[in-house]
Parts: sequence; C-alpha cells; structure tokens
Amino acid sequence: MTRPSESPACYQKLLRRAREIALANSAANALTWDLETYMPAKSLPYRAEQLAWLTGRAHRQFIARQVGEWISECEQQEFAPDSDEAGNVREWRRQYNRATKISGRLVEKLERVRTHARAAWQEARQQSKFALFKPHLDKVLALTRQMAEAWGYKESPYDALVEGYEPGATTAQLRQIFSELRPALATILAPAAARSAAISVDLLQGDYPVPAQQAFNRKVAEAIGFDFEAGRIDPTTHPFCSAVGPGDCRLTTRYDEKDFVSSLYSVLHEAGHGLYEQGLDPADFGTPNGTYVSLAIHESQSRLWENHVGRSPAFWAHWHPVACEHFPGLKKFSAEQISAAVNRVSPSFIRVDADQVTYDLHIILRFEIEVKLVEGTLKTADVPAYWNEQFEKMFGLAVPNDAAGCLQDTHWAIAAIGYFPTYTLGNLNAAQLMRRAMAENPGLDGQLAEGDYKPLLRWLREKIHRHGSRHTPQELIRLATGKPTGIGDHVEYLRAKFAS
Amino acid sequence: MTRPSESPACYQKLLRRAREIALANSAANALTWDLETYMPAKSLPYRAEQLAWLTGRAHRQFIARQVGEWISECEQQEFAPDSDEAGNVREWRRQYNRATKISGRLVEKLERVRTHARAAWQEARQQSKFALFKPHLDKVLALTRQMAEAWGYKESPYDALVEGYEPGATTAQLRQIFSELRPALATILAPAAARSAAISVDLLQGDYPVPAQQAFNRKVAEAIGFDFEAGRIDPTTHPFCSAVGPGDCRLTTRYDEKDFVSSLYSVLHEAGHGLYEQGLDPADFGTPNGTYVSLAIHESQSRLWENHVGRSPAFWAHWHPVACEHFPGLKKFSAEQISAAVNRVSPSFIRVDADQVTYDLHIILRFEIEVKLVEGTLKTADVPAYWNEQFEKMFGLAVPNDAAGCLQDTHWAIAAIGYFPTYTLGNLNAAQLMRRAMAENPGLDGQLAEGDYKPLLRWLREKIHRHGSRHTPQELIRLATGKPTGIGDHVEYLRAKFAS
Repeated sequence: MTRPSESPACYQKLLRRAREIALANSAANALTWDLETYMPAKSLPYRAEQLAWLTGRAHRQFIARQVGEWISECEQQEFAPDSDEAGNVREWRRQYNRATKISGRLVEKLERVRTHARAAWQEARQQSKFALFKPHLDKVLALTRQMAEAWGYKESPYDALVEGYEPGATTAQLRQIFSELRPALATILAPAAARSAAISVDLLQGDYPVPAQQAFNRKVAEAIGFDFEAGRIDPTTHPFCSAVGPGDCRLTTRYDEKDFVSSLYSVLHEAGHGLYEQGLDPADFGTPNGTYVSLAIHESQSRLWENHVGRSPAFWAHWHPVACEHFPGLKKFSAEQISAAVNRVSPSFIRVDADQVTYDLHIILRFEIEVKLVEGTLKTADVPAYWNEQFEKMFGLAVPNDAAGCLQDTHWAIAAIGYFPTYTLGNLNAAQLMRRAMAENPGLDGQLAEGDYKPLLRWLREKIHRHGSRHTPQELIRLATGKPTGIGDHVEYLRAKFAS
Repeated sequence: MTRPSESPACYQKLLRRAREIALANSAANALTWDLETYMPAKSLPYRAEQLAWLTGRAHRQFIARQVGEWISECEQQEFAPDSDEAGNVREWRRQYNRATKISGRLVEKLERVRTHARAAWQEARQQSKFALFKPHLDKVLALTRQMAEAWGYKESPYDALVEGYEPGATTAQLRQIFSELRPALATILAPAAARSAAISVDLLQGDYPVPAQQAFNRKVAEAIGFDFEAGRIDPTTHPFCSAVGPGDCRLTTRYDEKDFVSSLYSVLHEAGHGLYEQGLDPADFGTPNGTYVSLAIHESQSRLWENHVGRSPAFWAHWHPVACEHFPGLKKFSAEQISAAVNRVSPSFIRVDADQVTYDLHIILRFEIEVKLVEGTLKTADVPAYWNEQFEKMFGLAVPNDAAGCLQDTHWAIAAIGYFPTYTLGNLNAAQLMRRAMAENPGLDGQLAEGDYKPLLRWLREKIHRHGSRHTPQELIRLATGKPTGIGDHVEYLRAKFAS
C-alpha cells in the first residue's frame, strides 16, 4: 500500500485526484453493471446521460493542466525505481499523455453512443439482424477512428487502439504472433478433431435447471477462491466481470437449461478475472498500483482457471460427485466421459464455447476484421458477408445467421475494438504461467487433483495479482515466467493435451 | 413540459444546473438501490464514499452563490403565477434558502453515517439487538439535530425536520391532528376489534412459494397501471420505492412463504408510490415541476392503492380467481373470507402489516418518540424500554423483542427522522381523494369491481401526479379535494368500513 503522508506534495495531490476520479469511474461501473443486468428498458436514454456525465467528468479531472504539472514534478523526485511512487508515476504519465489527446466532449459522446449501441446490439442479436446494429456500429467505429487519429500511431491506427488494452503491443507484433500460431494450431487441429470425432457430447445435453447450475457454479467459484462477500454472479446476455469497487467484483454468465457446461466454464473464466481483481490491494484502489496492468494479463488469469484448471481431467475427477448431486442425470456418465466431452475439439460457431484448439482462430478472424474496419478497407455493411466467408474458409462451416456469426460478441457494441487479440495473448501467458507454476510447485498436480486450489491462487497472487501496474505487462510476464510472451508453451501444452 | 428556449437566461441557467444536479442525485439513487438489493457486503465502506461524493457534489452545485443570483433574477421576471417557470422558481427559492444553511461537508458526513447505519440496522434487526444499532443512531441523531439547528425553527427543532418531508407542516399542527385522531380511532377500534375477533386469519397461513407470490404481485401491479418497462420489483429487508431516473422507478418488497398477503400489500403500497413517480413528466425530471411535491402526497397515493383499492371487497371479488391460479390452496376460501381476513382489525406489532384502524397509532407512537429524541428529552439508550412501555399502553401488547419493536423500521437508520407523520397525513389525504374521486366519477365503483383501474389512475394523474411541485402540498390537496387535509373523511371512511 502507498503511504501518502511520507510522499511529496505533488504525489499526494495526484493520489487525491486519482481517488476522486475513481469515485466517478467506479460509480459509472456500477451503473453499467446495472444497465447490463437489471435496469428497466425505458431507463436507457437517461442512463446514457448519467454515464456520459460521470465518465466525462472523470476524464476532465484527469486531463487538467495541474495533473500534468504534478506528474512532471514527481518525475523530478528521486523515487526508488521499484517504489510504489515510481510505479504510479510512470503509469500516470503514460495515461496522461494518452488521455490529454481526447476532449471531455468526445469521451461523453462515445459513452452515449456505446450505451445506445449496447442496447441495439442486444436486440439485434436476439433477432439475429445485423441491420439493426449497423447504424450503431458505424457511430462507434467513426468515434473510435477519430480517437485513434487523436492518439496517433506509427504504422496502423489499430496500434493506437491496442495500446488501450495492451500497453506496448502493436498490430505488427500481433500479426507476427498470429502468423506463427495459425499453422501450429492447424497441425494440432487435424489429429485432435479426428480423435474427437469419436467423443459424444450428447451426454452434456440434458435437463439442467438454472437454480441447480447456479448452485454448482457458485460452489466451484468459491472453491477456486472467489469471495462472494466481495462479489456476486448475475445473468446477462454476454458474460463479463466488472470491478465495481474495492470489495465489489461482479461476474455474470448466461444459462442454457440443456447445457450446464456453457455457464460453468463462463463462470470459471469470469471468476478467473475476479480472482485477479480480488487479489489487488483495496488500499490502492483507483491508482495504477491497485489496478490490473493489461488485458492480456487479465485474460491469462481467466483462461488459466477456465482451461488449465477447469478443463483438466483432475478437475472432473474431483467435481464429478458434486456435479451429480446438483445434476442427477450426470450419474450415468463417468468423470472421464465428462472430461472428454468438455475437451472435444471441433470447429464451432461461438467463441466463448469454443474448444482450446480452435479458440484462437476465432480471435484471428476478429483481429483481421477489426484491423480492416479501423484501417478503412472493410465497410461495416460488408461485415456479415465477410465474416461468413472467412469463417467458412477457416472453420469449414457455413454460418447459419448473424447471431451465431458477427453479432455473437458484445465488444464492438461497447466500443472495445482492439480488445480481442488480448484473449490469445492471454492464452499464451496462461500456458507460460501454468508451466512455471508447475515447475516451482512440485506438489501442484496433486493439490489440484484434490480440489485444493489455494496454493495455485497463492502463487498467482504473488507473481501477478499483488503487483497491480507496478511493472509493464511485458516485464511482469518475464518476471513471472522467465521469458516474454510467445506461442511456445501454449502450442506445446495444446499438442500434449490434444495431439500426442 | 418547460420550454427553456423561450425563457430568460437566468431561468435557463437554473434549468441546466438542476439537470446536472439531477444526474448526480439519480446516480446516488441507483447506487443506494443497489446497496439495498444486490451489493456485496464488503463493498459497503466504499459505497459510503461514492454516495458521500455524489450527494456532497450535488449539494455544493446547488448552494453555489450564482444559483442564488439566478433565482433572485428570476424572481424579478414577471412570470405568470401559474406558469411552469413560476412554479419552479418558487420551489427553487424554498429549497435554496434551506440548503444554503448546510455545508457540503455536513451533507457528505451524514451520507457516510447513514450508509453505515443502514447496514448496522439490518444486522441489528436480524439479531434483534438494539445495542448493535445504538451507536449509529446516536451519530444519525447528532447530525440530524445539528442540521435542525442550522435550518432554524420557531417552536421545535422537529419543525425543521418535518419541513424536509412535508413543506409547510409543523410539529404543533401534527400534534393537533393526532390529538383529534387518536380518540376518534379509539371509538372505532373497540367495536371493530370485537367484531374482528370472529374472523379467522389462519386461512392466510399456508404454503405460498416466492415465485408464485412474485408472479401474482406483478399481475396486480400491472393491472393498476405500474409500467414494468420503466420499473421493477426486487426483494429487500424493508420495502421501498425508489425513483432512479425518468423511466426507472424501482419497488421492493419482502416475502414470507407462509403469508402472501404481506408482500402483496407492500407491493400495492409501493406501486402506489410508483404510479405517482411514473405520472410525473419525464421531460421535467430533476426540476421541481417534475418532482413529487411532498411525502404526505406521496403516501396518499401508496395508501390509496394499498387500502382504498386493495383492501376493498371489490378487490377480492375480482382477484380471487387469479389468486387461486397462483395459490391453489386459496380455493378452499371464498373472496369474502379473504377480504374479511385482510381487513381483520387487531392490534399487532409491525406497522407495515397493521390494519387500517390501528395503523395511525403506530405513527403516533413514532412521532412522539422522534419529537422527544430531537428535543433531547429521550436518550437513544432508553428507546427500546420507552417504545415497549408506550406500545403496551397504546396497543395492550407486550413487545417480544426489538425486531418486532423499535428496530422494525428502516427510517431512523437512513436518517429519515420526521418522515413518519406523513404516513398519517397520507391516510387523511387518501380518504379525501378517494371520496372526491367517487363523487366526480359515478361509475368508479363498478369499474373497480371489474378490475378496471384506468379511470381512477387517470383521475389521480390529472389531479395529483402531473402537477409535480407546481402547487404547495396544501394547495394541491385543496384543489383536488376542495378542502385542507383533515381527519374527517378518513375517520368517516374507517367508521363506515369497520364500525357501522
């Protein structure tokens, strides 16, 4: 925790300002959670105004001239390089340089546009009609491109967007990673899919009442360490994790009464995010030291718990009896059968339900479309046709409708363009972290098999969570795993699991 | 709706300021609703900071010197006496004179204190331990008294508090009304209770699953006109209605699986409040013209729908078959039996479940305690003993524990001291309004018997809702019913219903 009283005045002023900004931003987060979960429909226009006001105000408070002066003054101080102060000041500087390129008015405008776009997307997805969403996507894209131009970039305007989610990453680097990853996945996919063809997933089609799913999901989330006194789970169209405040991290999921697996793995995914948020120091809330460092680190936590833990054979060996208590129909099947079914590799339409081998192909598709949209070489009107064409090329499947295609994800509706690549970076980081965790904790395998998740969580808290933004994401992953983010461990893990 | 473009600059500035203040206040309302419904426990300390920041900021925005200047300038304009402008300016002046006596710091302090007090009260009520709540009540009371002194008063500091809920009302007037009402109720209570002794309420003790209660309550609320696209119902410790924004009015209730009547009548009560809120012009949201005028008017709406509509024989004649669909166990009983049971007059512990005859006695008890607390002639430590002693004198019943006694209501925990008397004023207003509605709408009896609530709602919209704060509450009730608030119609109604 940062000790303001021992710090110089400029630093104390920045801390106070950051905390006031956090009050507005966290109130906006709470209102956004409400908008996604329980808000009555007719409240939307006013909610857009409330959010625009809160986020606009927070932005103006941050881009004020004095804030820049305080940061400059702090940069003159001789803070120890690994001190709390140095970490906060470095990150404040990066954020300030970026934020001051955008006016408060533009922030308000985008907030209004995306609040309406989100509602339109829900409706469009429900009706599976891209046309209902297109005018909103046009507005989101126009403002997003305007912001990218304002932020500036070296090669592609998409660089400026990626920087907002993964500081330091560039379009060229992502392209390089994806160009290595895609053929590697292809060599795994063929044998994995062939072997999976014999695995039945029918066993997972049954009668799974929502209350039973909720009870089981909660048990699992509690077991991995999610604190329900500081969080909750609610149903939404698209699963997400929202940090509403210190001691308040809210997960969401969606339920299919025929398929408990979908809600379970989305809860494991979102709870993985939640564990990261709950592992940050509440005393540092609102400052970089108390904030997650990047989305690729965040997604490494969600994908690690969802896949490396949740889709391991050990997971089902432990949870099978508990699952049978909640879903008596499961008793007919062994733990091995369930584990095989949730690991069946087969091209499919929905990213969040995708197997681990094809998952990154979903990301590559979105990355390519986003870059084209942002660079102006693809029109929004052509998105469904382009999506469907590319999807068929990559997955060999004809997309039946927009809801199962380009309307499935919420990201574009909430103006989160540039976010998708961080899922794949997250997969890569997760594999590196898990490998290192195993190497440093020889008993880990046995602990996970017994459903004892505390040692793994403790290791992640130590290596990742507690640091907040004290290191850059690249430094953090190098410190934790001994090397920069690369495809090696992820491909090796997938090959061992699915094609060996 | 107010047309800002045709108004002078001072008025336009006030409108803009009022709307910005409304953004902060409505965000605070949404966060408070969340705090009461779904917020995780560990979020409380930070939520208190968020609320203090929002309400403190809204207060400072209003008490600014320019606001006073704009109001003075507007007072120089020759607005037509019944114009939208005149109504807003009159009310802004009243609120400004009051608000400027209180510092932003004090508003923040009270908001923090009451947010923690509310949580402590919930815990204290659950454990039925007044001692857990006492230190919080002490803080609330100290700040409340400090504010009363700052506001100023002629006779009693309690006057200054009542003014916040019922502009124009005084402690002396309330004492006068209660001193007339109490003996009148006594003459009704004796024969009503004697007659009620023969009525069984056991029929209402049964097996009423929460989902069935929710479905039935929703049907009833929809039927009386509550718009669920602009509102919702959630479970809370204490039922309330919260206007979160234009198009967003949220009701809450609590469920007892043995007794569906309790949640039904609290939904009717809160939906009555909700109809008032939904009847205000959304275009005027955040200005006096778009805001309820007083609590005694608000409570007249809730008590009218709860009692004059909901506890009438016609109500059960219409709803009995629908209730039986939701609660098959009810088929054994006739509409008349149910109607008799929900109208059984018998002294009991819980105000919100009280019959119509003893209800006002609960209010009188609270009024007397509040006045003593605020005037300093009763110590908080003595509240439970004093409550129990007075309760036994008034109701002839020994209070079994604090949860059924002085801890039952949330009002003191949320620093709403001075609010209780408005329930009785609401009862008086409701009786006057209902009598007038009957006189002006000869077909109303028949419409209500058929479950056609539109004509009554239309009349209330016309006479009460649409006016916002354009008239003082006293003027409004005189305009609507032809006379000032008095006990006559209420007593006559109760006598006709229960003792004739």
